Amino acid sequence: MKELEDRIRRDGEVKSTEILKVGSFLNHQIDVSLFNDMGAEWARLFASKHINKILTIEASGIAIAAIAAQHFGNIPVVYAKKNQSRTLDNSQYETQVYSFTKQKYYKVIVSTRYLTADDHVLLIDDFLANGNAMHGLIDLCKQAGAHVEGIGVAIEKYFEPGGRKLRSEGWDLQSLACVKSMNPQTGDVIFEENPTA
Amino acid sequence: MKELEDRIRRDGEVKSTEILKVGSFLNHQIDVSLFNDMGAEWARLFASKHINKILTIEASGIAIAAIAAQHFGNIPVVYAKKNQSRTLDNSQYETQVYSFTKQKYYKVIVSTRYLTADDHVLLIDDFLANGNAMHGLIDLCKQAGAHVEGIGVAIEKYFEPGGRKLRSEGWDLQSLACVKSMNPQTGDVIFEENPTA
Repeated sequence: MKELEDRIRRDGEVKSTEILKVGSFLNHQIDVSLFNDMGAEWARLFASKHINKILTIEASGIAIAAIAAQHFGNIPVVYAKKNQSRTLDNSQYETQVYSFTKQKYYKVIVSTRYLTADDHVLLIDDFLANGNAMHGLIDLCKQAGAHVEGIGVAIEKYFEPGGRKLRSEGWDLQSLACVKSMNPQTGDVIFEENPTA
Repeated sequence: MKELEDRIRRDGEVKSTEILKVGSFLNHQIDVSLFNDMGAEWARLFASKHINKILTIEASGIAIAAIAAQHFGNIPVVYAKKNQSRTLDNSQYETQVYSFTKQKYYKVIVSTRYLTADDHVLLIDDFLANGNAMHGLIDLCKQAGAHVEGIGVAIEKYFEPGGRKLRSEGWDLQSLACVKSMNPQTGDVIFEENPTA
């Protein structure tokens, strides 16, 4: 998606060959207009699918998913939670996700009431790197018997294994910007336009 | 706001005289249509204010704030973060917020780049009870020199002191549903239509 690529080139900060900061528009401060264009693009890409729910994970996927839902007929959005609140039911699906950033496993839960075998789900997240969070969401859907119709991520780090793995597993993954490489000296970001498994 | 009150009556679960669960539409599964109506109502209530940024706190405020921003001309949304990520700048404002639910203090941060003295801010959150999280956001704005133009919360627990305290401090607080009391035996929820300090 050219608009997102251009925005990354303009406002993204290449901190290293692996770290890209996009807090000015994607995951600390957010640009709702951009998010609407992203949602419209996913609606186009997944037009053949019958999607009736969006599932994401807190916190940085939530705004992207909420805005995107407007382009899928205002379908419900569910966000998996990283910490069990005391006010949640005990009836929940849970899975473990390993965070490379924090170097530890964390628990991710979703209520059994909001993810069921009737759901045809689009999974949404801001970043895809190793794919651990996304595999956690897929696992939650499997536990619920929900159908994963597709996966939409804003920025895929193509130099990490997550996207290739998801594609090789057969998932319909649509990354709106697929970063092939980054140069922290020049700030240049190279995008892959035809990502494969 | 009648629509939100009706939804709370219909889908909210009164777990005790103090605990109201609204995960089916507000903070686990979310109803984007309802959120748009809430955003439109805040835009009406704050029409006289010159608001150029929305500040909220992760995670349950994010979707509400993102959808609401569309009714304020797609202004930027910033969400304060509860855990310091390694990929954040060191240049950040931080404050401590006490959580009664978790019975501990947690740190809330916002980058100095996304909250400045040029900002005229609407604070948004899903619930207002003791007001600790909201006072944390106000503190972040004070540190940044940002102007707090108003406070919008979806559900105020009027039997807790947060709303009265904020009003007595002079803030323009607009709660879309103000719960006066709840009965866990009958499930009845009584709303206060004219909350005061």
